This record gives sequence, C-alpha cells and structure tokens, in this order.
Amino acid sequence: MHTFASDNNSGVHPLIMEAIIKANQGHVKGYGEDIYTARAQENFKLLFGAGVEVFFVFTGTASNVLGLKAMTQPYQSILCADTAHIQTDECGAPERFTGSKLIPIPTPDGKLTPNLIKPHLHGINFVHHSQPKVVSITQSTELGTVYTVDQIKELSDFVHQQGLFLHVDGARIANAAVSLGCSFRNLITETGVDVLSFGGTKNGMMFGEAIVFLNPVLSENFGYTRKQGMQLASKMRFISAQFNAYLENDLWRINAGQSNQMAKLLSGEVKKLGIQVTHETEANSVYAILPQAVIPALQQESFFYVWDESTSEVRWVCSWNTCEEDVYNFTGRLRSYLS
Amino acid sequence: MHTFASDNNSGVHPLIMEAIIKANQGHVKGYGEDIYTARAQENFKLLFGAGVEVFFVFTGTASNVLGLKAMTQPYQSILCADTAHIQTDECGAPERFTGSKLIPIPTPDGKLTPNLIKPHLHGINFVHHSQPKVVSITQSTELGTVYTVDQIKELSDFVHQQGLFLHVDGARIANAAVSLGCSFRNLITETGVDVLSFGGTKNGMMFGEAIVFLNPVLSENFGYTRKQGMQLASKMRFISAQFNAYLENDLWRINAGQSNQMAKLLSGEVKKLGIQVTHETEANSVYAILPQAVIPALQQESFFYVWDESTSEVRWVCSWNTCEEDVYNFTGRLRSYLS
Amino acid sequence: MHTFASDNNSGVHPLIMEAIIKANQGHVKGYGEDIYTARAQENFKLLFGAGVEVFFVFTGTASNVLGLKAMTQPYQSILCADTAHIQTDECGAPERFTGSKLIPIPTPDGKLTPNLIKPHLHGINFVHHSQPKVVSITQSTELGTVYTVDQIKELSDFVHQQGLFLHVDGARIANAAVSLGCSFRNLITETGVDVLSFGGTKNGMMFGEAIVFLNPVLSENFGYTRKQGMQLASKMRFISAQFNAYLENDLWRINAGQSNQMAKLLSGEVKKLGIQVTHETEANSVYAILPQAVIPALQQESFFYVWDESTSEVRWVCSWNTCEEDVYNFTGRLRSYLS
Amino acid sequence: MHTFASDNNSGVHPLIMEAIIKANQGHVKGYGEDIYTARAQENFKLLFGAGVEVFFVFTGTASNVLGLKAMTQPYQSILCADTAHIQTDECGAPERFTGSKLIPIPTPDGKLTPNLIKPHLHGINFVHHSQPKVVSITQSTELGTVYTVDQIKELSDFVHQQGLFLHVDGARIANAAVSLGCSFRNLITETGVDVLSFGGTKNGMMFGEAIVFLNPVLSENFGYTRKQGMQLASKMRFISAQFNAYLENDLWRINAGQSNQMAKLLSGEVKKLGIQVTHETEANSVYAILPQAVIPALQQESFFYVWDESTSEVRWVCSWNTCEEDVYNFTGRLRSYLS
Repeated sequence: MHTFASDNNSGVHPLIMEAIIKANQGHVKGYGEDIYTARAQENFKLLFGAGVEVFFVFTGTASNVLGLKAMTQPYQSILCADTAHIQTDECGAPERFTGSKLIPIPTPDGKLTPNLIKPHLHGINFVHHSQPKVVSITQSTELGTVYTVDQIKELSDFVHQQGLFLHVDGARIANAAVSLGCSFRNLITETGVDVLSFGGTKNGMMFGEAIVFLNPVLSENFGYTRKQGMQLASKMRFISAQFNAYLENDLWRINAGQSNQMAKLLSGEVKKLGIQVTHETEANSVYAILPQAVIPALQQESFFYVWDESTSEVRWVCSWNTCEEDVYNFTGRLRSYLS
Repeated sequence: MHTFASDNNSGVHPLIMEAIIKANQGHVKGYGEDIYTARAQENFKLLFGAGVEVFFVFTGTASNVLGLKAMTQPYQSILCADTAHIQTDECGAPERFTGSKLIPIPTPDGKLTPNLIKPHLHGINFVHHSQPKVVSITQSTELGTVYTVDQIKELSDFVHQQGLFLHVDGARIANAAVSLGCSFRNLITETGVDVLSFGGTKNGMMFGEAIVFLNPVLSENFGYTRKQGMQLASKMRFISAQFNAYLENDLWRINAGQSNQMAKLLSGEVKKLGIQVTHETEANSVYAILPQAVIPALQQESFFYVWDESTSEVRWVCSWNTCEEDVYNFTGRLRSYLS
Repeated sequence: MHTFASDNNSGVHPLIMEAIIKANQGHVKGYGEDIYTARAQENFKLLFGAGVEVFFVFTGTASNVLGLKAMTQPYQSILCADTAHIQTDECGAPERFTGSKLIPIPTPDGKLTPNLIKPHLHGINFVHHSQPKVVSITQSTELGTVYTVDQIKELSDFVHQQGLFLHVDGARIANAAVSLGCSFRNLITETGVDVLSFGGTKNGMMFGEAIVFLNPVLSENFGYTRKQGMQLASKMRFISAQFNAYLENDLWRINAGQSNQMAKLLSGEVKKLGIQVTHETEANSVYAILPQAVIPALQQESFFYVWDESTSEVRWVCSWNTCEEDVYNFTGRLRSYLS
Repeated sequence: MHTFASDNNSGVHPLIMEAIIKANQGHVKGYGEDIYTARAQENFKLLFGAGVEVFFVFTGTASNVLGLKAMTQPYQSILCADTAHIQTDECGAPERFTGSKLIPIPTPDGKLTPNLIKPHLHGINFVHHSQPKVVSITQSTELGTVYTVDQIKELSDFVHQQGLFLHVDGARIANAAVSLGCSFRNLITETGVDVLSFGGTKNGMMFGEAIVFLNPVLSENFGYTRKQGMQLASKMRFISAQFNAYLENDLWRINAGQSNQMAKLLSGEVKKLGIQVTHETEANSVYAILPQAVIPALQQESFFYVWDESTSEVRWVCSWNTCEEDVYNFTGRLRSYLS
C-alpha cells in the first residue's frame, strides 16, 4: 500500500529506470562531459528558452542553497515565507553555505506578495543591516497552494524594481505547472524568474535536481561553486539520462497530473467525512485538522507527518504512483477511526 | 573501447544495477529509515566491527569533507600529502566547509610517514597558530601506491600519541585491501583509523560513498552535519541497495581485483616499450613519462589526463571492467606512435 | 552640544583616558600576557564570581558573535527577539561566523518570555530542522526596557530545562544593573546566564568589550576562536587598563546612572509636550512618536535616528556625559517646532 | 628595559597619545562619519594617490583577511610564502572568512618571485581545482628582508598577466619604505599593487590598521564586509586621529627609521660575537642562530621568540622606542652567556 507521508517515499518511474539502464553503456567521460548531459541541457533549453544555463545536483537542498549562493554576497539577505523549505527543513544549510541571513515572513497560505515583503525592505544602504538581495518563493508552496502566473509576474516586477533577484524553489514545479495548465516557459521564463531550483526526485526520478539560470549572468563560474559545494557528480550521465526521460516523454506532466488529481480526490473525500481542509488543494498536498485521538493509530497503518502539533494539523502528500485505491483505502480507515 | 582516463568513466556493474531495480518496490520511508539502509549498516558492521557508525553520502568529496568536519574545529588544521585529493581536487571544499587550514606535505610516493609529519607539528598551544588535529592519508594513494598495514598502524600510533585523529580517504580502499590481500578490519579497524571515507562509485557503483566512524564518539550528531552539508538522500534506499550488492557478493573484491590486475598488466606492457613508470603500480593506477609528442594523438583516441605537464608524466587508471583486450589495444597504439 | 543619536557618539570618560595614559609605560608582552589584563580578569571575578572566564574583544558585534559561537554548532539555531541587535544590526555577522540560523521572535517590548519562545522549540531531533540551542536576550533591551532579575531567572530555568543555553547581549548591561539597583552577580551569575557579552564602549570607554563565561566549560579553547575571529588585540593592555578604571571606580555605575537619569528626564519632558513615548523608559533610551513634519529640522540641529519610518517613531539615547542642559535645550527646540 | 620580543610590545608614541586625547572633544557621529576620519582618508590619498579608498580596522589579521576577501571568491586560492603571517600566524582566519584555499610556497628569504610562483599556477579552468586568484606578499617580510621596488613591479606585472591580484601585507610597510628610501606611492601605487594592508600598531600606534584599495573597484560594498567581519569601530575617531598624527608628522618614517637602525646595530653587534645572522637585516628584525644552551636564561631576562627550534634560530624585533642602550645591554648579556 502506498503512503501519504511524502512524495519521496514513492520509488522510481519505470521509464526513468529504463533510461538509467540504457545509459549504462561503456565508458564515458565523467563530470558532465558526456552525450547524456549535453542532451539534457538541450532539453532544458527547449522547455525554458535557449538562453538558460543548467547545472545538475543531487538534492533539493543543494539545488536551493547553491542557487541562492549564485545570487548573494554574505552580507546580503534572502527573504522567504516562514514556511519555506529553506527556512524550516534544510537544517541551516542556506546560512552555512551562503553566509547570508534569511528573513522569514509570515503568510496566510505560504505565498509571498509585494505587500508582505515591503515592510522587510528597510535598512537599505545602512551598513549595519544585512542587505535584502533575493526573494525566494516556493512553487507549488509547502502548503500545497500555487502562485498564479500573474502573481509571479507581479512579484518578479516588484522584486526587480527593488534591485533584488527572484528565486523559485521548484521542488514541485511540475505540480504547479500542471495545476495551472501552463508551460514552464510561461510560468518561469516569461515571468522574469532569475533562478529556478527544478525538482526531479519528488516526481518520479531516483535522484537529481537542476539549477536553471534564467538570468545567465548569475551562472558565471558556477561550476566551481557546485564543485566546492560537493555536488558535482562523477558519473553524471545517470542524472542526465533521468532528466532526458523525464522531459522528453512529458513524464513530468503525467506524473504531476496523477499526484495532483489524487490530492484533489483525497481532499474531497476527507471533507465528506467532516474534516476541515486548511489550505486550498491546488497541487499534490492536502492539509487537514484531525481529531488528535485518531492520529497515532492512523499513522501506524500508513505513516504521515503532523504539521502543527498545537492544532493537530496533518499533511498528506500524493505521489506519481498514488492511485484511487490508495485514497479510498486511506479514507475508509480514517472513517472507521472517526466513528 | 574502454578508456584509462578515470575509474569513474566506467559504468555500473550489472549486480549493482540489478540491486537498484529490485529496491524499486513500493513506498518506503525516506532519508534512510528503510530496510535497505538498515541492512547496509549491518553489512558495514560485519566487515569493520560492530562498533562502527556509517553514514551514506553522494560524492567522494562530500565523504572526505564531512568526515573531516566531524574531527575538527575551525581553528584546527588538517595535514595531508601535497598530492592528496582533498588538497588538489576538491576546489577548496574542505576549507570552505570545515573552516580549517590544510597543511600540504611533500612526499616521494604519495605516502605520509611520522618523519614527514613531525616538522609540521609546531606551534602547539600557540594561539596564533592553527592547531594540528587530523592527519589525512589516501589509501590507495593518488599515485597508485599502497600503505602497508604496518605503515598505517605506525602512523595511527604516532598520530594518536600527538593527540590527533587519523582520517583515511578510501575512494579506492577496495583496491588497497585487494592489493594487500587483507580485510577491511585488518586494514582499518585494527590499525586504529578514526574515520574512513569508503568509496563505492569508482569501483562499480552508480553513486554512493560511506563515511565509516571507527571512533564512534565522532559520529555524535553527525546526521545534522550531513543534512546541513546537503548530502542527505531522500530516496536513500537506492544508495543502500547498491552497497548491499557491493558488500554481500564480494563484489568490492572482484572489481578491485580486476582493475588492479589490469594496471599491473598495463604497467608491465609499457615498460616493455621502454617507457618509464614513475611509481610502483600497487593498485589500479599507472604513472608514466611519455614523449610529449605522442600524447595528443593518443589522447585523441582514448582520453587520459596529463598529471604533470612539466615532465610529461601521464596517469592511466584501470576500472572494474577494463579487460586485457583494452590494455593490449592501448599499448599497441602506443607502440605504433613510439616507433 | 551633545546629541541623542547614540551612546557611542559620546567620547571617553576622563578616568578611562587617564588609565590609558598610565598604561603606556615601557614594553609589556602582547596579546594579554600583561599585568593590566591579569588585573582586569581579577576585577571581573570580583564582580561576577571566581569561576568566570573573561576574554576581551574590540566591538560589541564581535562580543556577541564570538560568544554565540562558543555555544553552538553550525546545525543549531539561536532564538532572539526580532528587535535584537544580533538580528537587525550586525549585517549577518552571527550567521556568517557561527554558520547557525537565527530565529527572530516578535515581542511587544523587546523582551522574550518562555511563552514567546515555546512555539519555536519544535522539530527537536528532526534531522531536517536546525536545532534550537541558544536563547539570546538583550539587557537592557534595544527598546530601552529592562528584564527584572526574576524574569531572567525564569528564562534561564526554562532555557536550561530545554537543554539550551542563555546568552545575554549586555552592550548596555550597566544601564540595566543600575536601573534595577542590583549587582552584576545578582543579575547575571545568580540567575544562571551562560555567557554575557559585557559592553564598555557605549558607557564611556574608548573601545573594548568583554565576553564573560559564567559557564566556564564553554570557554575551552576560546582563545583560538577569538584569534581566528580576528579579535585578539596585540597591545591588549590598552583595553584591559580601560576595564580596570571602569570597574574599580564604580565608573560603570556612575556613568550608567547619569545616562539613565537623563533618559527619564527626557522622557518626562517630551510627555509634557504631548508626545507619545512608546516604551517604558527603564534604561538610557527613549522611544517616541513625533509628527513626521518636525523630524528633519530637529535632526538637522541634533542628529538622531528614526526607528520606524512607517509610524515616525524615533529613538533618543542618553550618554554618560549627557547633562540636564542638553535635555532642556533639545526639548526646548522640539517645543518650538511643535508649536 | 625594552625587549626584542615584538614591535607590538612597545607602547604608544607620545604624539599618537596626544592626538587621541585631542580627539576626545564632545559628541561626534560614530562609525566613521566624523571629521577625523575624513581627514585621515585625505591623508592616505595624499600619500598614495587620489584614487585610493581606505577602510580602518582594529587588527593586522583583520586587515589581511578582509582585504583578501575583497579579492576572492571562495573557490579561488591565495598564494603566499610559507612563512607568511597569513599562513602561519592567523590561526586559519583567512580560510575561515574567505572560504578560500591558501597555497604556501617555500622561499629562501621570505620573498616570492615569478619563478617560485609559476609551478603553482596549474589546474587553471579545471573545475576540481581551487583557482589561483591572489598573490600575497609581505613587505617587509616576516624574515626581516625587503622587496625592492623593481621586484614588486616585476611581481605585479607577472601577477596581472596571469589574471591575478597582488596583495601586500604591510604590517611593517613603513620599515620597508624607510629601508628603501622611497615613498609609499613609489613602492605601492606605482608598482601596481591592488590592495595593501597598511600597519599602524607595530610602529607606534595604540591600535588601528588600514586597508588601502589601490584598485578601487575592489572596494565596492566593502563597508558591509567590514561590518560583517566585526571590524567596524563605533568610536572610529580614535583610530582616525592616530593615523592623522602618524601620517602628518612623518612619524611613520621617524619611528621606522629608529627601529630599522637599531636592528642594523643589533645585527652588527651580534655578528661581532661570532653569531650567525641568518637573513639580511633590511628592516627591523634580526634572525640569528644561538647556542641552544644560552637561550632560556637570555629569554628570562628579556623575552624573545625562538623561530625554529630545530636549528635554535631566534628572532629579535626592534621597536620605534628601542634605543642604543637597549641594544648594548642586550648584546652585553648575550656576550656574558656565550663566554
């Protein structure tokens, strides 16, 4: 049975596995000087535009941290939602590697707006104050909500007017694009995003994330930063081959479509049980408040995380291979515990 | 045709690939709380002793850097051969992540000895001087030589008498163990090594290295260091499953045996051609001085690295899947260029 | 005329200057191995208790940052008021040097309480989350308020129950002790503070701050941290001699008494003008809301900082040499602008 | 009696002290926005040229480290003599704050040359290798020798041809200029140095060093780096006033002239005693090999450092207030121990 703990609990999509096996042919040069990597870079250019520069790394945390490093000096700060993965779930890796300060901003729904950001843009040119330089948003957010294209455009315009950069943590960027029914180009390139951390692992890959520089000036000398950041893969063909399968077959869309749809189903089913869903279910996560008493037994059968112990809010995440049966099984058990 | 550029140019051993495919069953918890990882940790305990603690990471650089971080404060220094990978090939990652100073020591053969180290153990308790804390050796070395068990034991005793720790960069530890015909337990645990960076990728795995704490006190809270170091794999089962195949089937021994044997063959064959081999061929690398004129054409056909341009010394590395035919093809071409 | 911009705009007290001149006799060893420094350390032991360890540095930022470094690993976090100097006015130095995350907590009056801290003590033992390790408070606070002895004791007990350390940014600790009418021993040692950053510069010294380790285990090897932190003074006698004059003559008390008293006077006078004072005037700072229109002209004559542009809240700080005439002159001008 | 341990054991020159006292008039803005600092900056422009930018800090280590930070990215390396202060006596502060690797190069006399540097300029554009970016020299050197103007010019040309920067650790730059009989402009500006760490403390100041950017592009945003580096003085007028006295009265020249002359005298006198002086005495330090047996008793009377225990080489440093009597007293005692 599939769990709803995280989209990284699911395994690897068969087409990805097939691509890995096929890439295992003979000797090829290491560190990205291979045909698989060249093709993967082309695939990103096809989807995002010819001007982008792309670098592959192993983990989502690395993708965020190294991307942020490319945009900041240590005396500058990074503004993000207080629910952002970089703030809550990367064990201080952003501060450690960039030397920069993070400024967490409370939001109602995980989404930043110009008005939420403005009060934090003070102390400009004041030498005692870490200087704001990057706004980092997550798309889809850690709360399962999705910025519209217009919202990102508005943020991007605002951020650039202030002389800052816009970073997108796209660990679940595919879920956002599918939710909005738009292309990566519409969502990211045309809205003016500077750097995107493009996720693969959570949506059916084995391992592998991409740092996509829409603003290619920022990628200058980035190869050294990746190496010094301990993220340069020696047998890189096995990341690149995954991305080729992921991008060439619309697999990103198919997988995200499935997980999004299952989240909608799950959300609808638990509402029928009288459960309060706390955020809009716009991507592949569902947040809900459960009676405290039913949580441990339900977790025992199918593990998931409690998001906020004070309110007994829980998080469920659907994966590329979550199916209707999984949802109905789970909500069936939930119903039995509730009664 | 297989090249001699690096043992990371080779692909993945079929048994490793099979283990990856088999591990792709259903949902399992991420970040190492899975049965594959538990089994892999047991496998390391079987080979090194029940007291060891093991953490998996993605790259060899990370394995070295995070292992060194566990042994140092930023005001302490790390002594190593001036040919050490941590000194020459990690783009300053050790300094960046540990904050520590590296002290490179010239050696004739890539191997440190107490006498080579002693002159660098000065300024002890002098507050202006970064305090020596770790000696890091590479086994087998970057020059293809191998420390004997007695040499490591002597180093370990010396290092501990001085109040320092002993780290082993074991990116090619299997090649050393096979070369010496000894077990990991003999070579590492019983000699008193504190932390071993245990390599997998260069010897037939797809990706994955292990940090083995023989001195388990040093592993306290290391999980946070790995996470902050951006090296915690979400789908960790796919590293662990590789290690299980690698360790349970004597695959480490078989693969390293093949690459060592092919290096011996290559070394012998080029000597027959009158080429000077500059270091003992004790593991899977061969160093030799070629006439400058033949290098570019030979590289064109089968890429390899020039190690020292000033002397036209080159490096050839054999892999788990290098075969006799590869060697004879290569030496045949070399012969034709020489004549 | 004296300004109210900052207590660092005032110069050096004559007794401090005299001590500096007297210390300029002959050659003495550098880096603290001199009789002035030995005596200064004794003076701190007399005031705080025989068990304390003391290290001198140049700046308040260094005093905070190096003190925090002694209490943290990079994967741990530091909780503070969102108005804390370490959060707003040290240009990210704490994150840069410690590698740790800062968690800013909103407060009504610049003072943390157990209840304000509790919601931020989550994710304990969760490897993805930077682990809370230090609570840092400022005494007197950046808002001119003062923790009572009982409030610090309550915080200290709470913090230690959670396995954390308590740090006090005491850039204005003398103002707090005078305000409360208590000794440093009552206020700091007996309440269980672990590390105090003890300020000198703002209260009549030329330069010089002390890091006082009440928990002496934390001071182990701290000499190296100070040196690597670029804060080891070669001619240290000139810091130490200042502290001797400051501590032996009750100068800390006299100076802080004067600045506190002048702040009370200023606060009372502006209230008479119908101006809203926004925080209790418990130390040497006064916060008030001025009509936006009068600020620039008043600043022109006697510079001061606007604290919050959105509300036109301003800050005035009294110094050891602020006198009644300064206050009446200033409020006189303010009155003329208001009318 | 004056010792020969270090030029920081001497106190403060009377003219410096007088300037400090005079600067203690009324309130002035902190952090360098004061008339003393403006005048000090003008003084540096007079001496080095109108294009320079100058920043004051507290310690020599800070002056080197922050200056180097302005020239490097963390993935770049800094080449220096293996006797350089940044390599041996800053407790790893350069690595810690810059994130960069230091490459120590053996020299016969503490002086780098293009030929000594060349073998270390390898791995250019090789992503695994920390990229050489700065050559740092010390003038006068840690061995008491002095680069000629031509030697610096040759180095500067070479370094710039390679796309690197040239940094000068000028903790004793005044001693070098006096030794060569040239101006700072001849020695530094016109030779093409990029950044100079200009020392004050060792030559009669109380505290205070200057980072002089000859290449002003490198100083962009440096104010934030200084603040984050914990080196922004709140009562900066007391550094600036010292520099004004130091530079306006030729005090730098008078003081360095005295210490240089006394070193020449000391060097000559000990040679008469049959003692081997190991380096040319070109500035204010003398290196000599003493019989091991006489060292402890001599140190007891007048402390000095053993430079190399293996050869019983010692270092003596003369100060601005070392006088002939000090030298003859010292050599008299040495003579008595030798006989």
